[in-house]
Amino acid sequence: MSTTRQAGIDIVADLRSDTVTKPTRGMRTAMARADVGDDVYREDPTVRDLEERVAGMLGHEAGLFLPSGTMGNQVAVQALVPRGGEVLCAADAHFVTYEAGAAAAHGGISTRTWTTDDGLIDVDTVAGMIHPGGSFANRTFAVVVEQTANLPGGLVHPLQRLIALRELADSTGVALHCDGARLWHAHIATGMPLHVYGGLFDTLSVCLSKGLGAPVGSVMVGSTRLVDEARRLRQRAGGAMRQAGVIAAAGLHALKHHLGRLGEDHRRAHDLAAALASTGVVQPDRVHSNMVVLDLEGTGWTAAGLVAAAAEQGVLSVAIAPRRVRLVTHLDVTEQHLRHAIHVLTGLLGRGTTEADRSQRRPSQPMP
Amino acid sequence: MSTTRQAGIDIVADLRSDTVTKPTRGMRTAMARADVGDDVYREDPTVRDLEERVAGMLGHEAGLFLPSGTMGNQVAVQALVPRGGEVLCAADAHFVTYEAGAAAAHGGISTRTWTTDDGLIDVDTVAGMIHPGGSFANRTFAVVVEQTANLPGGLVHPLQRLIALRELADSTGVALHCDGARLWHAHIATGMPLHVYGGLFDTLSVCLSKGLGAPVGSVMVGSTRLVDEARRLRQRAGGAMRQAGVIAAAGLHALKHHLGRLGEDHRRAHDLAAALASTGVVQPDRVHSNMVVLDLEGTGWTAAGLVAAAAEQGVLSVAIAPRRVRLVTHLDVTEQHLRHAIHVLTGLLGRGTTEADRSQRRPSQPMP
Amino acid sequence: MSTTRQAGIDIVADLRSDTVTKPTRGMRTAMARADVGDDVYREDPTVRDLEERVAGMLGHEAGLFLPSGTMGNQVAVQALVPRGGEVLCAADAHFVTYEAGAAAAHGGISTRTWTTDDGLIDVDTVAGMIHPGGSFANRTFAVVVEQTANLPGGLVHPLQRLIALRELADSTGVALHCDGARLWHAHIATGMPLHVYGGLFDTLSVCLSKGLGAPVGSVMVGSTRLVDEARRLRQRAGGAMRQAGVIAAAGLHALKHHLGRLGEDHRRAHDLAAALASTGVVQPDRVHSNMVVLDLEGTGWTAAGLVAAAAEQGVLSVAIAPRRVRLVTHLDVTEQHLRHAIHVLTGLLGRGTTEADRSQRRPSQPMP
Amino acid sequence: MSTTRQAGIDIVADLRSDTVTKPTRGMRTAMARADVGDDVYREDPTVRDLEERVAGMLGHEAGLFLPSGTMGNQVAVQALVPRGGEVLCAADAHFVTYEAGAAAAHGGISTRTWTTDDGLIDVDTVAGMIHPGGSFANRTFAVVVEQTANLPGGLVHPLQRLIALRELADSTGVALHCDGARLWHAHIATGMPLHVYGGLFDTLSVCLSKGLGAPVGSVMVGSTRLVDEARRLRQRAGGAMRQAGVIAAAGLHALKHHLGRLGEDHRRAHDLAAALASTGVVQPDRVHSNMVVLDLEGTGWTAAGLVAAAAEQGVLSVAIAPRRVRLVTHLDVTEQHLRHAIHVLTGLLGRGTTEADRSQRRPSQPMP
Repeated sequence: MSTTRQAGIDIVADLRSDTVTKPTRGMRTAMARADVGDDVYREDPTVRDLEERVAGMLGHEAGLFLPSGTMGNQVAVQALVPRGGEVLCAADAHFVTYEAGAAAAHGGISTRTWTTDDGLIDVDTVAGMIHPGGSFANRTFAVVVEQTANLPGGLVHPLQRLIALRELADSTGVALHCDGARLWHAHIATGMPLHVYGGLFDTLSVCLSKGLGAPVGSVMVGSTRLVDEARRLRQRAGGAMRQAGVIAAAGLHALKHHLGRLGEDHRRAHDLAAALASTGVVQPDRVHSNMVVLDLEGTGWTAAGLVAAAAEQGVLSVAIAPRRVRLVTHLDVTEQHLRHAIHVLTGLLGRGTTEADRSQRRPSQPMP
Repeated sequence: MSTTRQAGIDIVADLRSDTVTKPTRGMRTAMARADVGDDVYREDPTVRDLEERVAGMLGHEAGLFLPSGTMGNQVAVQALVPRGGEVLCAADAHFVTYEAGAAAAHGGISTRTWTTDDGLIDVDTVAGMIHPGGSFANRTFAVVVEQTANLPGGLVHPLQRLIALRELADSTGVALHCDGARLWHAHIATGMPLHVYGGLFDTLSVCLSKGLGAPVGSVMVGSTRLVDEARRLRQRAGGAMRQAGVIAAAGLHALKHHLGRLGEDHRRAHDLAAALASTGVVQPDRVHSNMVVLDLEGTGWTAAGLVAAAAEQGVLSVAIAPRRVRLVTHLDVTEQHLRHAIHVLTGLLGRGTTEADRSQRRPSQPMP
Repeated sequence: MSTTRQAGIDIVADLRSDTVTKPTRGMRTAMARADVGDDVYREDPTVRDLEERVAGMLGHEAGLFLPSGTMGNQVAVQALVPRGGEVLCAADAHFVTYEAGAAAAHGGISTRTWTTDDGLIDVDTVAGMIHPGGSFANRTFAVVVEQTANLPGGLVHPLQRLIALRELADSTGVALHCDGARLWHAHIATGMPLHVYGGLFDTLSVCLSKGLGAPVGSVMVGSTRLVDEARRLRQRAGGAMRQAGVIAAAGLHALKHHLGRLGEDHRRAHDLAAALASTGVVQPDRVHSNMVVLDLEGTGWTAAGLVAAAAEQGVLSVAIAPRRVRLVTHLDVTEQHLRHAIHVLTGLLGRGTTEADRSQRRPSQPMP
Repeated sequence: MSTTRQAGIDIVADLRSDTVTKPTRGMRTAMARADVGDDVYREDPTVRDLEERVAGMLGHEAGLFLPSGTMGNQVAVQALVPRGGEVLCAADAHFVTYEAGAAAAHGGISTRTWTTDDGLIDVDTVAGMIHPGGSFANRTFAVVVEQTANLPGGLVHPLQRLIALRELADSTGVALHCDGARLWHAHIATGMPLHVYGGLFDTLSVCLSKGLGAPVGSVMVGSTRLVDEARRLRQRAGGAMRQAGVIAAAGLHALKHHLGRLGEDHRRAHDLAAALASTGVVQPDRVHSNMVVLDLEGTGWTAAGLVAAAAEQGVLSVAIAPRRVRLVTHLDVTEQHLRHAIHVLTGLLGRGTTEADRSQRRPSQPMP
């Protein structure tokens, strides 16, 4: 791709997303050696091993292997919510912004969303939005929480708020789903055991292909009943794969070798934020995990302009709003990459508006 | 119904909704004399007359007669938005709260919603939520505005904000639909001609069965192309009726005889609010049309408790939130009803909490 | 409409459909006098009377008033079948041909269809198509039967076959819905009590606006549980109406005054078929109720050509296939109309192909 | 699985489906060496190579890699057909029987189906079912053809019929999609070049994980416009994968090494049919590719009974109807397996009904 290789640039720091990591040599070896079978017949031992392992880590009965986190969220929520039922979530949640309208188009699920100033869940707001049935209003069946919250910048919802949300859910008969694409990061950032987070939700979906570095795959967990229903929904979505052990093996390898090292990514994100703090576009205390969001209001830069200017110097990032740029650390970002990114971005941001605004349009970029 | 006739009560002021009005003698005569035909073959002259008249009033090319405002909103928005497309609206809009999830369940339409403190549209908020396409995010196809805004209490969105919204829509390629169930009230309250409101939207749906007092029916208007598409969607919804002129005649009668008199309802709502102002539960400056919302926070009353206590004394209202009660004036509310309601409600609210909280649950009430 | 009034024609026999009947004077008087209320609050006594009366006639617990037979079929079947579930019916059933794809678009319901040579249900065929679950195949939840069968020409499915179908349904756990838009005709044609038919189905939808001559309205019946669910689905479809008693009154009037007279329509259809038999386009033994289908294969006429030629002489009919024309007798078809139709059609069909094929395209005609 | 390993059986011939093949050593090496990138950003060179190669083989502009044939069919047909539109196909097509109702539940697509006695497409039947629009009937947008036809037993639709179908499609404005999960087999069985088949359809989906022996993956092809739309639908389905080159590499390997050898599978299927012909349950002239269907009518065996009895002796098969069993040859079926299967099945079928009917229920088996 033209955006990944620039003439005359010796180093490219790809901070667009943690989805760009490539499988390691050890991971490829694990894939090549995986014991496999037809998983539609449930005869793939590697897939079953992965499903059971993730379910166990999160304290749930059963797991289901899927080709993406989008499918993980969708089969879980569609298992919880009937056609015409209502789901509440944040207005910038992946579930309602980057899943191509699947909840409505595939599940017939109605969404209402909240906006909070700081990106963190506010239980009173949720309480005021729930329609528990018993009137002619749409009935709320589930609330979706994204942990960590991607578009707000990898924020970690505090455990106390999640506990309060669980109590609200219990008292109103509403289910909770966690879009845990980066739940691993919350676990590493807070030290809170995964099963504590797991215990607060009816279903969770976690990704192996983002921070953990596997090439493909997510796992949804829940009760046996919900996972059985989700398995049927996976078939409807076209996500039932045959000898899927060849990719599940990469996930098992990632869980073993790449979970503990996420702390490195977090440290690098903090270092990046600290280095950019003087430019005024970063709030370091809002860096909770492996993301840094640059808020360009008042700088003269548009997001598209900064992304393009940085890319020319070998630093890749994405625009997530007209004036917001996201940088993500991950398995394939080294100290050298980090130093290069700091060098380029401080240079551009220090220089101010002269370079800014080459483009007025946000470029078409896959997210996130 | 037990709620409408109470032992020993000589007068019942039904302020639950303007949907409860009964057809007048003149309206019934018009219905009995209507010239009709099979409207599925488009051979009903009364229906066509009504459709053309409403389209003309709102400055649009064509109109479509429908059995309800819900169907009017749904066929309009589904004509504007493809499966999987996104619609933005207020979190308490009828479109996403009282239409049983139809946009998602029937249209496959994804909704994201905003919350504003004062119930009036805020164009900057909408601007920040639009995803115009060109990225992997869901694409926003339309914004729905409810004029007047029912659940906030019959508020009238200021014309300047609607004009700014139209400009935003034009610049982003997004369509605008008006849920005009009570657009008539905005017209009467502000004196702004209907076609001015009409000209700001791609489609509108207006109701004949609420403030105007017809027993059944709504009209959706738009371009000929959109109305043709909506006609097909009406067939899918099961809303194509045969000799529908028998009910369209009531709508024509209502437009002729009941539109101008809505000012009386507004005056009565203002009188009611003024009379209750001293109890502290009403903000008279938030009474824009024919609704009064009582905010019971701090009074000791729950909404359900006050609704039940007032009903025992012949004043019917509805709970729209755990601590909010709505009162609506309409064609069948007389001065005598109004005085009775003021008497009962000031009595109950003055007495304070001793009567309050007989019931903790909001009763199941059709809305709105 | 240009098709209903032709220059120089003194008489127009409108045999397009029994949907074109206009309300009688007595019916209009009943409507004008109806006691009404807000049916969304379930306070309309006339609607409740009609719902209870029809439920009683068909031997079911509860009924639901709706604006059309399409909505009656849809809310019933969507109450029986979850999203992704499967329904079986005839390939030419109204349910899958004239409801604008509602089962799939609104209900997410998958349909598989059978073709039979004679238009009558064949229980062995149905048995071979049911997937009762327990495998990865789509699961069959319901079978829809149209009684009488419209497009095959108003055929009456024999009771014995329906009883066998009920047994099949019981043994496989599949539900049965009757599209009884013209169940009244089967009842009159066979003398079989309505509750006998009613007892064979989990849900039925019957129409007041076709043979019975009411302007608008259908009633769906079933258990209280299913009707409650259907009421919510009616709200989603936008079919909840306010003072609907004004039209329900017409239905009550029709049940009282127009049910018994359907035998006249049947006799006229038989007379028409007998008179046309010599032209070779009609099989009189396939005239079971109020419809006559002309099969134009081998005559040189296209359906569109014959429809147009007959309309010029004041006989209105519809093309239901490139070589098939349907004629329907009803409340507004008199003996004089019938004789005129026989005169015109025998003339045209006797003359053969010289008049034929003015148009090759089937005209756009509402059905049925 | 208990069905795949039986105590005391030295050999297991797994003839359930060609989906059970395991990746070869060479294929695993290709996967381990694959050059990869983030395919959501379209940066995976191996995926792009595969997409272009398959599109080229079938004579189409563009291709899209997907996790399954179900998703290939669904994104293709949903790109061709709007919500509420109609698709025609055979009543036993995979598209309407084994995709969990996705066309309706996800696409809002209405299906009508035909039954033919011999499993081969009959163009006159299809012509009679198409509703081309211009009336109030549902409009037919596409016809789906499964080549080879799985449930009828791997039958190859004759080229002349497909050409006639293409002409019908062109004259009526209807699109054609080929479910080509086993189009490779039709190509090998007839010698007809793949691009000849490809040229007859607007879109095709072909599978790498069945006869070709790759572990996971399918490719959908069509015009650039349709593939772009399908890519968005793939995102909605959750089928967008990241470093998918690790599995696409297996597909490229399979195309190079396993396509030509399908003739061996066909020869073995013919040998199996010939050997079983004397038992009367097989029609050898209906064996067109790699499948043999046993029709047990009149034998005393149920499908479930024979499947269970054969499994006990190390021959695995599936019941596809109460009296029909399917056997499939593939990459992992050797001559030795074949001889064992012939030995066991001739023994059981010769012995007749004494062993039959141990079980009356068709077991829950993934298909196909």
